[in-house]
Amino acid sequence: MERKIYLSNTPLSKAREIFWSKALKKEPDLEEIGTTEAAGRVTAEAVFARLSSPHYHAAAMDGIAVKASHTFGATATSPLRLNLDEKAFYIDTGGLLPPDCDAVIMIEDVFYPDKAKPLEIEIREPAPPWQHVRSIGEDIVATEMILPSYHRIRPFDVGALLNGGIFKLKVLKKPRVALIPTGSELIDPIKNPEPGQILESNSFTFSAAVGEWGAEAKRFPIVKDDLEQLEEVLLEASSKSDLVLISAGSSAGRKDFTVKVLEKLGEVLVHGVAMRPGKPVILAMIGSTPVVGLPGYPVAAYMVLELFVMPLLYYMQKQRPAENQILPSHSSRRVLSSLKEEEYLRLKVGKVNDKFVATPLPRGSGVSMSLVRADGVTSIPQDKEGVEPGEMIPVELWRTASEIENTIVCLGSHDLSLDILFDHLKRKGHGYSLSSAHVGSMGGILALKREETHLAGLHLLDEETGQYNISYLERYLPELELILMHLAKRELGLMVKEGNHLRITRLEDLCRKDVVFVNRQKGAGTRIFLDFMLREKDLDSSAITGYEREEFNHLSVAAAVAAGSADAGLGIRAAAEALGVEFIPLAWESYELAMPVSFYNSDRCRALLEIIKSDSFRDSVEKMGGYDLKQSGEIIWRSQTKVQP
Amino acid sequence: MERKIYLSNTPLSKAREIFWSKALKKEPDLEEIGTTEAAGRVTAEAVFARLSSPHYHAAAMDGIAVKASHTFGATATSPLRLNLDEKAFYIDTGGLLPPDCDAVIMIEDVFYPDKAKPLEIEIREPAPPWQHVRSIGEDIVATEMILPSYHRIRPFDVGALLNGGIFKLKVLKKPRVALIPTGSELIDPIKNPEPGQILESNSFTFSAAVGEWGAEAKRFPIVKDDLEQLEEVLLEASSKSDLVLISAGSSAGRKDFTVKVLEKLGEVLVHGVAMRPGKPVILAMIGSTPVVGLPGYPVAAYMVLELFVMPLLYYMQKQRPAENQILPSHSSRRVLSSLKEEEYLRLKVGKVNDKFVATPLPRGSGVSMSLVRADGVTSIPQDKEGVEPGEMIPVELWRTASEIENTIVCLGSHDLSLDILFDHLKRKGHGYSLSSAHVGSMGGILALKREETHLAGLHLLDEETGQYNISYLERYLPELELILMHLAKRELGLMVKEGNHLRITRLEDLCRKDVVFVNRQKGAGTRIFLDFMLREKDLDSSAITGYEREEFNHLSVAAAVAAGSADAGLGIRAAAEALGVEFIPLAWESYELAMPVSFYNSDRCRALLEIIKSDSFRDSVEKMGGYDLKQSGEIIWRSQTKVQP
Repeated sequence: MERKIYLSNTPLSKAREIFWSKALKKEPDLEEIGTTEAAGRVTAEAVFARLSSPHYHAAAMDGIAVKASHTFGATATSPLRLNLDEKAFYIDTGGLLPPDCDAVIMIEDVFYPDKAKPLEIEIREPAPPWQHVRSIGEDIVATEMILPSYHRIRPFDVGALLNGGIFKLKVLKKPRVALIPTGSELIDPIKNPEPGQILESNSFTFSAAVGEWGAEAKRFPIVKDDLEQLEEVLLEASSKSDLVLISAGSSAGRKDFTVKVLEKLGEVLVHGVAMRPGKPVILAMIGSTPVVGLPGYPVAAYMVLELFVMPLLYYMQKQRPAENQILPSHSSRRVLSSLKEEEYLRLKVGKVNDKFVATPLPRGSGVSMSLVRADGVTSIPQDKEGVEPGEMIPVELWRTASEIENTIVCLGSHDLSLDILFDHLKRKGHGYSLSSAHVGSMGGILALKREETHLAGLHLLDEETGQYNISYLERYLPELELILMHLAKRELGLMVKEGNHLRITRLEDLCRKDVVFVNRQKGAGTRIFLDFMLREKDLDSSAITGYEREEFNHLSVAAAVAAGSADAGLGIRAAAEALGVEFIPLAWESYELAMPVSFYNSDRCRALLEIIKSDSFRDSVEKMGGYDLKQSGEIIWRSQTKVQP
Repeated sequence: MERKIYLSNTPLSKAREIFWSKALKKEPDLEEIGTTEAAGRVTAEAVFARLSSPHYHAAAMDGIAVKASHTFGATATSPLRLNLDEKAFYIDTGGLLPPDCDAVIMIEDVFYPDKAKPLEIEIREPAPPWQHVRSIGEDIVATEMILPSYHRIRPFDVGALLNGGIFKLKVLKKPRVALIPTGSELIDPIKNPEPGQILESNSFTFSAAVGEWGAEAKRFPIVKDDLEQLEEVLLEASSKSDLVLISAGSSAGRKDFTVKVLEKLGEVLVHGVAMRPGKPVILAMIGSTPVVGLPGYPVAAYMVLELFVMPLLYYMQKQRPAENQILPSHSSRRVLSSLKEEEYLRLKVGKVNDKFVATPLPRGSGVSMSLVRADGVTSIPQDKEGVEPGEMIPVELWRTASEIENTIVCLGSHDLSLDILFDHLKRKGHGYSLSSAHVGSMGGILALKREETHLAGLHLLDEETGQYNISYLERYLPELELILMHLAKRELGLMVKEGNHLRITRLEDLCRKDVVFVNRQKGAGTRIFLDFMLREKDLDSSAITGYEREEFNHLSVAAAVAAGSADAGLGIRAAAEALGVEFIPLAWESYELAMPVSFYNSDRCRALLEIIKSDSFRDSVEKMGGYDLKQSGEIIWRSQTKVQP
């Protein structure tokens, strides 16, 4: 049952060139639509005005219409009187000039000298010909070009077209995109999937993206791993669409029929591009219809969508692809990247001390949350081995730069209250946002040292004093002027599966042969707490099965226990309650936020404090269980650094 | 019939402050929708995952699933054999790990040692536990926050929500915006409006704009100038909408009932803002529904839309208003601005010699084409008297900076072929664009001198030599290294109304008392030609009625003649034919493009030349009548400037 691995490693630019040259041969279809429905559409040909605007000589002001020559000689000292409806005519802005009139006098310059003669008005200066008159074609002259070909129609273009007498026009038809999800393991989203069933979500992301890019998506039912069925659906889809996207089935796996079918029905141009994620992309043609086979992993699929599908749809509509802003930022980490591919890295970006700092998000192509959490993306070229800490990298932003400037960065230990804080900050509507990445308490301290974060979330127990956090700041960051603010006390304990069949009751039980543990990563406060307790109790970590298996936050530990891949883990009560596992309390610990004094004095921090001290925030956090926020917002400690006089 | 003028002059920022404080009191309505329809909508509350993703331990690779401990000890020199379906199980990416398995070995690392034993495989290194396994919650852990409140949902958010088991969610309802066009002079767009009837186009611009800003528009039928009817419609609209926009009727004119009705039904917060255009805006409340009265002129209306309606709709949806890029540019002109208002100036922007140059467009608030042609807008603060030539001004871009960098700027005389050139350039799809502004031939020469244009369109007759353009370049631009390229020969003559009842046959007839002329602006090649001919024939310009009335292009002159506001004008045959007026030929003239040698050698110019020399361009231009393009694209002259050795 050996399988041939036949992915090529075509460079991205080469793959695109090959694809565009075939995929863009067909001219786009046209349709005629009403002007009032035309916003957002693309003109198929130049549009010339049919009417002038205005199409008659119109008053540009409210006032009286006159013949200019009748007003000559009027001055302040020798005003002129005119009879209404003989030589002067009331007129509103936009009104038609009466025959023989060629000027308008503003109503503010019209006087009524004699109450007994209501039809007599007085003027005190002459009107030059064409004063306050919008002459024919002042805005648009009939036959003038209003819009060129291939112009995306904006709201005010609609107004100008109507003013020019254009009520219908030819536009490019929206490209029709067929979405075909494939794979026997896929099911349409249902409430309670069985293990082994994967919810088919990619096609819905595709559909939304394709819609944003001006095309119309049609999702086909899921095609199981069945060669004939795939062939049938592909034939139908390619005959009715301008582009076909096949979701999953693009790699070289056991049941990946896609390439075989495409080779039979048309031509496979490229299979395998030197990019990561997204390598196993297929670019093909069936007749004149381009086909893209996208990988099944959501991040890989989305990158292929952005790099191949987005530009193609823009080109089909005769537009330049949308461009995001590029923001040069300092990389906060070392990233090693393969010389085999160009790598697209999702990043969190924050502005700390006037410096934009980019922190890579998880690189796994299955982590769809890395797209959700990303502020932007950078590409590491194929011939580059990676990125050094502090190196300037160009970040293509997925948010605006001002959103990033208004984002509070919190690196350090994970706590569920940070999500609640983020949510409350958004609800407050000051425009501030909170971006937290979970790098453990020690990671937070390093980030403060390197000026990469505004806040560090810490729960570091000093084994000697039993005090939290302060001694760590004194030891590791003596040069910084810092403030330590209390956020929450939280209950720490062992999480075990519902029912606790293994009867785990205390830390000592972790050393039992029948108990499999799941640990937190090195540098996490929870792990430091565990090691401290093990030493206190003279227990040997090498006796614990699973001590080496690391998860990166409380919820993941609870999830591992809930799913039975571990029998016990250490974490906070709120995570245990969220995932429905049992909790054996061990201690209360302090979770605190360390920050530079300069940040403490900023508007952003004031907005944050307002929330931290609010009842609604405290209630939301305490509701999760195992939290005590009585002291939240209190300053626990302030560093003794001498400020320059 | 005196009228009270009671517009206030409230500063823009103050007016906004007053308006927001009342208009944003009501919390937005919510609705529950399906996740697959949610892209572009705004979350009403934080969304927490209901399922983990993956929700079971899944293979991350195609290969075989094993229990890690069964593989320990395997090396290249002492490989290990495992029986399929006993201790090794074929598995596809995403597949469920069989019971007791905790690792996956990639198919590339699986060997088949003995063809006779197809169920025996060989491995040459051990698999650590959890190798190539996506453990439960690797992407999303159930109960984790996927999106915070007030988050605009992007395509990949849809995928993440589905992966987290969220199939329905609460979003903010789209704000409902009522559009009420008012004015007895307005009619719905019809093919052949009578003089005095104005096509109601503004509400369609509003509708498209409001849709782009995330709201839903409902257009009401046109309300005539009738107090009771307006009251009735306003009551209905305000009770059913989150915002009411009243088009026109916001100034202080004779029949402007809007303010009266609003004062009766609710509260007028501001009437009159210190901005131009857009001064007569009304900001009001009817109950909890904000109401904006917009001026009738399209440019004024659009500026009010951008400055008041756009931010309000974003705030209602708990979003920050969209921000355009700000591009510092050199003003090419002096602009005087009133100290009474903040002025919003539409601009053309081009990049010439690495310098962004902004040229103001016509300031009239009735010129909807100034919106269509604008590349951006700048605001001149209320306390600033204007802008000096060369001054750096911040331009808020309506296009991307790269579109502007790809735009060829042509300042100078107007010719209809420039529009055709623009259209053909767009169709070519190189991404280049042409932006022409009509400042007359002499204006074009000055623009070349000041490095504000790539091309200058010229048709300047040398009265001594009878030659076109060259002597002007030699005289005025001796220091520049220039190239003069022929574009077209065109026929110049007198335009007279169809039928020519005044029997105008030659230039001398312009001096007749019964003939009203319309002229071109000073510096226009056509005007220079006229003056030359008048001198040749010893005619006195002061004898010509209308010599002082200036239009800025051929089409406007033809339109004035067609409409009967002038009996004769001077211009090109194509304009006469376009507007259906009679044409009395006088001469053929050369219309040429002068450009710096550096521009001539650019890619942009090559793209332009490709079109200028194409048959399809020549055909399109000659079809207009009065054009001869046999020589187009020929280099007529090159300046003799000595290049530095």
